[in-house]
Amino acid sequence: MADTPSPTSPTPDTQRPALAPRRFRMVCAYDGTAYFGWQTQPGYTSIQETIEQVLAGIVKAPKVDIHSSGRTDHGVHAKGQVFHVDLVTRMTERSLKMALNANGRLPPDIRILSCREVSQDFHARFSAHGKEYRYYVWNTRILPPDKRLYNAHIVRPLDVEAMRRAMQYFVGKHDFAAFSANPNRPIESTVREIYAFTVTKRGSQICFRVQGSGFLYKMVRSMVGFLLRVGAGQEKPESVADLLSPGTVRTARVPSAPAAGLFLWRVWYA
Amino acid sequence: MADTPSPTSPTPDTQRPALAPRRFRMVCAYDGTAYFGWQTQPGYTSIQETIEQVLAGIVKAPKVDIHSSGRTDHGVHAKGQVFHVDLVTRMTERSLKMALNANGRLPPDIRILSCREVSQDFHARFSAHGKEYRYYVWNTRILPPDKRLYNAHIVRPLDVEAMRRAMQYFVGKHDFAAFSANPNRPIESTVREIYAFTVTKRGSQICFRVQGSGFLYKMVRSMVGFLLRVGAGQEKPESVADLLSPGTVRTARVPSAPAAGLFLWRVWYA
Repeated sequence: MADTPSPTSPTPDTQRPALAPRRFRMVCAYDGTAYFGWQTQPGYTSIQETIEQVLAGIVKAPKVDIHSSGRTDHGVHAKGQVFHVDLVTRMTERSLKMALNANGRLPPDIRILSCREVSQDFHARFSAHGKEYRYYVWNTRILPPDKRLYNAHIVRPLDVEAMRRAMQYFVGKHDFAAFSANPNRPIESTVREIYAFTVTKRGSQICFRVQGSGFLYKMVRSMVGFLLRVGAGQEKPESVADLLSPGTVRTARVPSAPAAGLFLWRVWYA
Repeated sequence: MADTPSPTSPTPDTQRPALAPRRFRMVCAYDGTAYFGWQTQPGYTSIQETIEQVLAGIVKAPKVDIHSSGRTDHGVHAKGQVFHVDLVTRMTERSLKMALNANGRLPPDIRILSCREVSQDFHARFSAHGKEYRYYVWNTRILPPDKRLYNAHIVRPLDVEAMRRAMQYFVGKHDFAAFSANPNRPIESTVREIYAFTVTKRGSQICFRVQGSGFLYKMVRSMVGFLLRVGAGQEKPESVADLLSPGTVRTARVPSAPAAGLFLWRVWYA
């Protein structure tokens, strides 16, 4: 009768040692078209909430909280968003990933690319060392229907060389206050470091790639928005330097490029 | 008083000579995801009906009939579908095309790529000399969200060389009865000619290209469906020859590949 609780032991429920939560680091890709951005907001469908609800169903928890490397806006896509989550489960990394991607679980516009158990000191946001974003522009008169969800459409022919000259000013450590739309939240510092910024053109598609230590709210779309004005001949490449000088605030010269062209490409860690 | 109708003339409405209808040949591209196929069907949104309604609004006609090179099924895309239409209008080719593509007219998942006035003996279907279709497959474990609308997803690694051997049997004039799903309509002949059939792989994407004189209902998806079975090792390449022998009817060995991977690529004329 070894399985019968002894009178001195607590209630049977606590007989089995409670499982400690395990931390998982997951990489996900999504098509942001149908979502109101990453972050959960009452009344809107978010990517975060969609993943949390599916995960809760899989591990049979009433609620699950996931923590991403950062938000993405309404309509912005990701090829390699990273989040961590603490789960009380005996499932393996592989079975968790497969369960999330299974039919009837996550919708096909969200996919889990990898799942790895990590130590409790890993944090998707605070442990991140840098991020890469890519921004795609379709630069012809007519935007092909199958490209419309993943490219901004600019009819006017863009001067790639002028944009290339302009983007060099962004590289390095600068105050990006003029390239951020602050949605009413205090920011400690608007200084960020850009490691690399390149632009390539292949056929009708222009691809901007930017890597940096971190990015302010709407910073990538603001930088690209200004570069597109440079490419259209409405601004000089050197004007970037003025806008990066300390104390400069956001002006109408810095529009946000449309969400559809933007992909959070990857997040890297030590 | 030259403008006053004389008593002997008919009603003022017929004073101005009625404009003769002009025939236009248009090339269009569409993302078929949101449509119930090309052809108008009561209760469903079709590409044909969408274009007809916008065109009627532009030329201020109560109704406009467009005639395509052929139908495409629910969820199938086009890069170069061709249709003709007779319009009573003074608009130029260019202004018609621009009006159709303008904001608030055609939705962004349908674009008019070209518009050209043609003689009355041009017919988008009967004048066509051949067509090219392309079929895209994403062949990895996980289908990236931004590829899901324009590729079929096959997890099992496909043997491209085996599919290449199999597709050679399709080239030439054959009875394709086994590769057509007949939706209860009589077909005069199930003989068609395939001019070329190729397959290429780039990264995770496999692209089938097929050119022919014409195609039976679901013929491309049926051929690709069988090729995918060959690629997965479930059928031998030589089996195509058996299925093309006269009198062979469709069997469960010939499944239709999913609609999402299929594009009507172009239609050519003399």
